[in-house]
This record gives sequence, C-alpha cells and structure tokens, in this order.
Amino acid sequence: MNEAPIPAPPIEAERWFNTDRPLALDMFRGKVVVLHAFQMLCPGCVAHAVPQARRLHEIAKGLDDLVVLGLHTVFEHHAAMTPVSLEAFLHEYGLKMPVAVDRPSPDGPVPLTMAAYGFKGTPSTVVIDRAGRIVHLTFGAEDDLVLGLVLGSLLNRKVRDEP
Amino acid sequence: MNEAPIPAPPIEAERWFNTDRPLALDMFRGKVVVLHAFQMLCPGCVAHAVPQARRLHEIAKGLDDLVVLGLHTVFEHHAAMTPVSLEAFLHEYGLKMPVAVDRPSPDGPVPLTMAAYGFKGTPSTVVIDRAGRIVHLTFGAEDDLVLGLVLGSLLNRKVRDEP
Amino acid sequence: MNEAPIPAPPIEAERWFNTDRPLALDMFRGKVVVLHAFQMLCPGCVAHAVPQARRLHEIAKGLDDLVVLGLHTVFEHHAAMTPVSLEAFLHEYGLKMPVAVDRPSPDGPVPLTMAAYGFKGTPSTVVIDRAGRIVHLTFGAEDDLVLGLVLGSLLNRKVRDEP
Amino acid sequence: MNEAPIPAPPIEAERWFNTDRPLALDMFRGKVVVLHAFQMLCPGCVAHAVPQARRLHEIAKGLDDLVVLGLHTVFEHHAAMTPVSLEAFLHEYGLKMPVAVDRPSPDGPVPLTMAAYGFKGTPSTVVIDRAGRIVHLTFGAEDDLVLGLVLGSLLNRKVRDEP
Repeated sequence: MNEAPIPAPPIEAERWFNTDRPLALDMFRGKVVVLHAFQMLCPGCVAHAVPQARRLHEIAKGLDDLVVLGLHTVFEHHAAMTPVSLEAFLHEYGLKMPVAVDRPSPDGPVPLTMAAYGFKGTPSTVVIDRAGRIVHLTFGAEDDLVLGLVLGSLLNRKVRDEP
Repeated sequence: MNEAPIPAPPIEAERWFNTDRPLALDMFRGKVVVLHAFQMLCPGCVAHAVPQARRLHEIAKGLDDLVVLGLHTVFEHHAAMTPVSLEAFLHEYGLKMPVAVDRPSPDGPVPLTMAAYGFKGTPSTVVIDRAGRIVHLTFGAEDDLVLGLVLGSLLNRKVRDEP
Repeated sequence: MNEAPIPAPPIEAERWFNTDRPLALDMFRGKVVVLHAFQMLCPGCVAHAVPQARRLHEIAKGLDDLVVLGLHTVFEHHAAMTPVSLEAFLHEYGLKMPVAVDRPSPDGPVPLTMAAYGFKGTPSTVVIDRAGRIVHLTFGAEDDLVLGLVLGSLLNRKVRDEP
Repeated sequence: MNEAPIPAPPIEAERWFNTDRPLALDMFRGKVVVLHAFQMLCPGCVAHAVPQARRLHEIAKGLDDLVVLGLHTVFEHHAAMTPVSLEAFLHEYGLKMPVAVDRPSPDGPVPLTMAAYGFKGTPSTVVIDRAGRIVHLTFGAEDDLVLGLVLGSLLNRKVRDEP
C-alpha cells in the first residue's frame, strides 16, 4: 500500500466473549493485530473467514507478538444475531479468540466500529501494525498466502519503523 | 434394508417457512419425500447437509413426485436458534424448500418430531416412500451418490408395491 | 431423455487393466453399466470424475447388477499418457475397477471408442441400461446426486422394459 | 527454527522447463526462493502442493525478491513420469514457473537433488533465504498461512543478516 497508514479506530464493544475483561487495541501496541469482522449468518464468513481466523489464532499461540481478535458487526437481521445466538455460534464453531460485539448505532443499522472502519460488509479482515495503524484491509475472502505474507512481514519489522 | 419399513411419524410443526399454509406428510402420499432435519448452528449441517438439501430441492423441480422438506430440530442452544434467527438463516443460505420448526417438548430439550423419529442428532436425513414409510434414515453426512441411488430406486417404483 | 435410446457401441480396447481377461459390454447385458471416460492428465478428471468413479465402484460392490468400467481415451499428448504411465496412475490413485485403454485410430488423434460414442472430451460419463442402450451421457463434471438418481432408477427397472 | 541454517545444495537438473536457459540457485542470491519438489503422479501434490505453488508464483509476480521454482523429483514409477509426460502435465495444470527435472542417480531410484536435500518424499517444500540457506523444509501439505508467514518474514529481512 502506498497510502499513508491511518490509525486504527478504537473497538466500540457492547460486550466481549472469550475474555474475562474488556479489551482495547491500545493494550496491544507493540504487537501485530488481526481483526476479523464477521456476522454469524454470513455464508462467506462461515465458509472461509471464520475457519481462517480460527487457524490463525491457533498459529498465533506459537508466535510472538501476533494477536487475533473477532468483531461481530451486525448490520442486518439484528433480531436474528443477538449476543445469545453468537455465544452458541462461538461454541459450536470452536472459536476461542476474544470476540467483541460491535456496539449498535442509535442512528441506523450499521454498528459503531464498522462505521468507523468503513467496512463495506462482512467478512472484513484488518491488519494493524505494531504502531496501531491499519496496514491491510480486505473485504471478502482473503487468500491465506497473502494474509500470511503481510503478517510475516510485519512481525519481522521493529517499532523503530514508526514515523 | 431388510427390516420392515415403518410408517413415518407426522411432522409436529410449531410453524412453517416457505409455504403459505401448514403442510403434513399425508399430503404427499404417492410421492417420495426427503426430510432434512438440521439445526442452523450445527457446523456439519451448514457444511454438507444444508447445501445437499438445497441442490436436491433444485433437482426435484425437474422431477415428478419428489418432495424435499426441511425440519429445524432444535435440541440445544434453544435461545440461540429461535424462529426469528432461522428466518434470517434461510434467507442468507438461499433455502427455498418448505421448512417446519419442530415443536418444542414440554418435557425436555428434544422437540416432538425429533423424538418421534428417534434422531440421534443433526443432520439427519429421512427418505419416505410413496406409501409414507421410512425406507432410509442417516445420521451425519449422507453421500450424494448413495442418496441419489435410494431416491432413483424409489421414484421408479409404483404404488402397487404398497402392502 | 425423450430420444430413443441407442445401442452402446462396443469398447475397442488396446488392452485392459485390473482384469485378467479382456471384457466386452455384451458380457454385462442384464446389468447397468457406468462407463467413465477419462485422461490421466486431465485436471477435471482427476479433481472430480476419477474420485466419483472410485467411490461409485466401492458402492457397486454392495449392489446387485451395477458395473463400473473405466476407459482411458487419449486424444491429446499421446506420448505423455502411455499405458505405462496409466498403470502408475491407477496405482497411485487407487482405481481398482477394470480400465480399458481406448484403441488408437490410424486416422487421427481421437481413439476408436471415443469416436464411436462421439465424446466431446474428458471426462465423459455414460450410463448403459440392462438392455445395452445408452440412457445418459454427460461431458464434464456430473453431479453425484443426479448420477445416483439415474442409476437408482435403472437398477429398479426390469429387463422386461426392453423393446 | 533454532538450528543453524544450512546452505541449500545446488539443483542437479537433467533439464529445465519454462525457462530458456538452465538456472542455478546461485543466480538468486539476495532473493528468497521457494523450491517445490513434486511428482506428477503424486495425488497429494496434485491436490494441494501444485496449486499452492501455482498461486504463489502468481503472487510472486507482484513482489520484489521472491522466486518460485519447481523440482520434479521422480523416485518411483520412473518409466511413467518421463520429461515427455511432465511437459504435458505442466501444460494441462497451467504451471508457468521454471521447473527442473531432478537428475537420476546411477546408484538407485532417488534422484540426485532429492538425495542432497534429504527429502522424505513428495510433496516437499523448501524455503531458501537471501543468503542461500535452507530456513524451512516441509514434507507433505504445507499450510498456506504458515508458508506465507515464513516468506513474509524473510522478504522483510535484509541481507545484512547474513553471517
């Protein structure tokens, strides 16, 4: 990307799963973060992005400095994808990474974090560098090889690169 | 199967989707019926049985006498798989066949139709012959070739076979 | 198919694998035969049709009156797909059904059986009924459900249907 | 890997495809090289490693300093996997990267480059760093995410790391 990286907006979470306290991106400064935005009833998410995030979370356990977070960004069928339904989904699909429930907007169907990042839909995959900047953002299925290349490159870059 | 076929129990439906009136197996006497029992948050259903049912429903449009019905048999995570959630699921996954919501039991987590058929879990696939008898019942992923062979055989058999 | 079924041309084999004597379609009169025409270096064959034939051959062991035969119809890269190479291919891919090597034509690249059947390419799947007639012929990937339906229907039909 | 990286042995090629002159690893010093060892009749290669190499070669066109090479290491069925057969395979499977034919050994079935690298079989994937050292070697299917991570990390490392 030749554009100047922009700071990753904070995660506005209504609640969190798979963590005993609320998280924030600031806590992971100095690490590389992958933020997987999905909806539990999005077929493309279930077929590709959710399994990718699950495998990446497994791989990250053996790596230094890589963090994988989920973000449930409901922008349609709100009554069908409540946190109660999400909790069962996470259990059935074996997702163990922390997952934030994007906070609904008072002004429309698109929740707050999704709006701040400008996601076009789900799945969306965001890579955030050690300095907290968005360096990669994909809407739709992201190729495993490409995602690995981006992350490998960042994991080997020191914070001294920060401007 | 060498066992004597047993009559298919009636579908006890709380409500139906994709049909403007409640259905009953009796209406399809003289036809071959495939009953696909699933749960919307069952990964094995979403990965294999639901797409199989969708394709079979497409194929059935071009055949005489083959009917495909869905049955949402919630026996776990009841609060997560309500009819409201199911409606969004059917829309997102493009399921157009009639789908019954299995009626909850007052006595436990297993709904009434599921109990009557004795399903071990989801997905379960039932083939019912022209005389209304269960002739094939699979728990788990059913091979497309095998299911096709069973159905092809039945579709070519006349009702005169009925006892 | 509304067209009148035509008699299946004989298999013109240069040699056979997985059988201790040459076979002929006439030997299987009274049975249903699936003839899978493939080339070992055809990606669509290797990805779909060859595994389908292997599974169907497994299933046929438990059925009466279903025969699965392979036909190696080389019409391109002749020097690359010799019987020696085919033998290794059958071993590596675990194909146990009888496989005929289609006899080369003195007049062009298309071998004799392929020409007699009029195949457009590989893979091609032919279903031959108990009376030795072609009742189904597909060029390209054949859906497992559809193939199963066709076979199930034929297996349940008696030879008295023969004209 | 905590072991000291060892220098990658030279490629002993009987001939090359997809290049108009013989290549050598020394030519790529300063770049990262992926060496995909395969056999054209190895089902695991055809199902996973060959498509992975093809996609990686496509991705590498847009990257600086990444080179993808194939190595056809025939250690069984030698008469079935000649260069003539390989040429048709490369055409049918759309492989455009340079591919070396590993030089047969006078002493046994395992060819010279395969022996020098100590491959256990096919597919084997080798990653060679900018200094010409083996830093990653996998026998069997290599996960796309893991391979991408390894390559991304190396592509971002400068040659000054060389001892």
